Amino acid sequence: MSNSVVRMATRAKAAAHQMALVPTKEKNTALRAMARALKEKKDYLIRENAKDLKAAEKERYSSALVDRLVLNPKRVDGMARCLVEAARIKDPVGEVLRVFKRPNGLIIKKVRVPIGVVGIIYESRPNVTSDCVGLCLKAGNAVILKGGKEAFYSNQAIFSVLKEVLKQTAIPVDAIQLISSRDRDAVKVLLQQDALVDLIVPRGGEGLIRFVAQNSLIPVVKHYKGVCHTYVSARADLAMAEEICFNAKTQRPGVCNAMETMLVHQEVAAAFLPSMVRRLQQAGVEVRGCPRTRRVAQGVRPARQDDWTEEYLDKILSVKVVNSTEEAIAHINRYGSRHSDAIVTKDKTEAESFLKGVDSATVYVNASTRFTDGYEFGFGAEVGISTDKLHARGPMALEELNTYKYLIYGRGQIRS
Amino acid sequence: MSNSVVRMATRAKAAAHQMALVPTKEKNTALRAMARALKEKKDYLIRENAKDLKAAEKERYSSALVDRLVLNPKRVDGMARCLVEAARIKDPVGEVLRVFKRPNGLIIKKVRVPIGVVGIIYESRPNVTSDCVGLCLKAGNAVILKGGKEAFYSNQAIFSVLKEVLKQTAIPVDAIQLISSRDRDAVKVLLQQDALVDLIVPRGGEGLIRFVAQNSLIPVVKHYKGVCHTYVSARADLAMAEEICFNAKTQRPGVCNAMETMLVHQEVAAAFLPSMVRRLQQAGVEVRGCPRTRRVAQGVRPARQDDWTEEYLDKILSVKVVNSTEEAIAHINRYGSRHSDAIVTKDKTEAESFLKGVDSATVYVNASTRFTDGYEFGFGAEVGISTDKLHARGPMALEELNTYKYLIYGRGQIRS
Repeated sequence: MSNSVVRMATRAKAAAHQMALVPTKEKNTALRAMARALKEKKDYLIRENAKDLKAAEKERYSSALVDRLVLNPKRVDGMARCLVEAARIKDPVGEVLRVFKRPNGLIIKKVRVPIGVVGIIYESRPNVTSDCVGLCLKAGNAVILKGGKEAFYSNQAIFSVLKEVLKQTAIPVDAIQLISSRDRDAVKVLLQQDALVDLIVPRGGEGLIRFVAQNSLIPVVKHYKGVCHTYVSARADLAMAEEICFNAKTQRPGVCNAMETMLVHQEVAAAFLPSMVRRLQQAGVEVRGCPRTRRVAQGVRPARQDDWTEEYLDKILSVKVVNSTEEAIAHINRYGSRHSDAIVTKDKTEAESFLKGVDSATVYVNASTRFTDGYEFGFGAEVGISTDKLHARGPMALEELNTYKYLIYGRGQIRS
Repeated sequence: MSNSVVRMATRAKAAAHQMALVPTKEKNTALRAMARALKEKKDYLIRENAKDLKAAEKERYSSALVDRLVLNPKRVDGMARCLVEAARIKDPVGEVLRVFKRPNGLIIKKVRVPIGVVGIIYESRPNVTSDCVGLCLKAGNAVILKGGKEAFYSNQAIFSVLKEVLKQTAIPVDAIQLISSRDRDAVKVLLQQDALVDLIVPRGGEGLIRFVAQNSLIPVVKHYKGVCHTYVSARADLAMAEEICFNAKTQRPGVCNAMETMLVHQEVAAAFLPSMVRRLQQAGVEVRGCPRTRRVAQGVRPARQDDWTEEYLDKILSVKVVNSTEEAIAHINRYGSRHSDAIVTKDKTEAESFLKGVDSATVYVNASTRFTDGYEFGFGAEVGISTDKLHARGPMALEELNTYKYLIYGRGQIRS
């Protein structure tokens, strides 16, 4: 096992050096051919996926997990579309970020280049396999994938279809690798290959991400939980606030950019909360609130301390009444997860303080937190939403799958 | 010990939230006041430094280490100048990196913001204490310093002078912290505080950096060794090549951007190597070469396999004759440390292949690798030269001590 992972990483590294030189056009041709192949092999993919679903049934996985696991014709089309999209977006490789000339005449060019070998460790959803292949290849990298055992057959099938296509393209076949072992030992070995692998992206539950962070010698960009807040200011348009909060909580509660905590300024609590809470409850949301929330709204269970840090990923919302915008900001910085947080206000100065004060990847004024997403940002897709502050923050796509280097042009300059 | 490090980190995090809001002018005023204080307290600093030097004598430290440890009037002035320089350079905080409007009307602004709390773990040179305080504060961060036990008294003295100054400024006193413990246990505790500290920068020997990388839950930007190459192409101006190589090896052999391996194309080996090697030997450089080098140059010891990966930091050079530019690139990518590598050539196409093919932070055409340095790049100073590919590559200064966030302006947008 150990040897096979090291061999894979060695081949990926060699392929990465070639990948860095593949022209944009050739990369796009390959991505489009992969998209076509997925559609052509749809029946095969769905057949293999059925094996995973059968195993999931035996293991009595939750319906949420099984739902994420399913491949159907629509989802395969979605995977193909994502590859076409990766072909369509601008190639970041080679972009000149800055040019400057030094007093000694040296010309220094800072240019975007591929990172090299990217390892992606993920769980359940099999579309991650093709999405990450598409983004990593377009960004000029080699990629090593390690999916979860629950999607074993689906991932193998998708990977074999994509790999087969590469044989007819300018992209080296070794640029994509799938670790097929079903346990975490292979992950442990991978995480020690800091001479061969340049970046690890873990996608999945908090347990997986903690495991990766604790065991990796390779830099990790973490995609932790999203404990997202919306703060309804004393100067909010309350009708707008209600629409934004309702959307952020209910439009898709199971995702990381859904709202988990609503903060409301005390001056508008009595006007805003009763109808807001009622509407949420009618949509099936369980509301847990602080004492002041419970005083003005009906049917609210008491929120415990744990509620402020919990990512429910479900139809549950915690609500707190605050005395000031400062208190709202402090609450978010203390209990939040640096993902996405919003203020609803008509006051521009207050909005700017909130934008400055909240230490999160994306901070909104008068919009739903649900827009934190590579596609919504116009990045085509994403390998994840980074809650780290180093290298990549928020939606992580092509530019974040690149690094830079300095090219320095001289005429014989030496240092004195 | 454990509690005291956690308390320090907690205070640093609170100070970081304030730091992010301190205006540029106030930061610059504080930095200049710090520079003045260092100069005023010169005698005190040199007296405290003498205690470290006495201990170093007792421990029989190498003369190189003792040299790095010494504080004298000139070095204290240098430290002060570095703080003034930090005040002078443009504040990166708040810079708008990109603004884009989405079809739904959302306006997304990507802006530079401080990272938060930066931990710097370093060895020997006491000037790192004030240099890192200057850069971290200017970039809007709080900083936790952990110096080596060999500079215990010097670091304490510098730190106490700087801290005293902060009491009269707009910068929160807790924004700078020094861990005064003399052992690595404190470092271990610090490296686990991923909820409080955002970035760790280790500066020192390979042992220290490995220790940090293995024990940190916090993202680390590593500053490993510099195994730098100069490749003399078949199409080089040989006189220029000789000056560049001589400078890269001998101008200051003990630093990370000095040349450790010289690669020479076979077509020019006989014309270039004899006089080049003689000149290096006359300057006291020990030359170790491959068989083909030894055939054309005098007094060259055989290079062993280990020589290709070694950072000598000394007057030693390994030399290899190669068959092609491709072989030179492959050698660098295999044995180098991704730091700084150069080609000497008159051929622009060949230069571009080298720039593209070599996977290092800084790649030079017709110049000495010795220019890889924050000051030479015009960044004022540096917290180090990153050999990592994530977040920061090459000289790491103010911009690299920042991250970004997205500010999103809406008019009630919700996701459908």
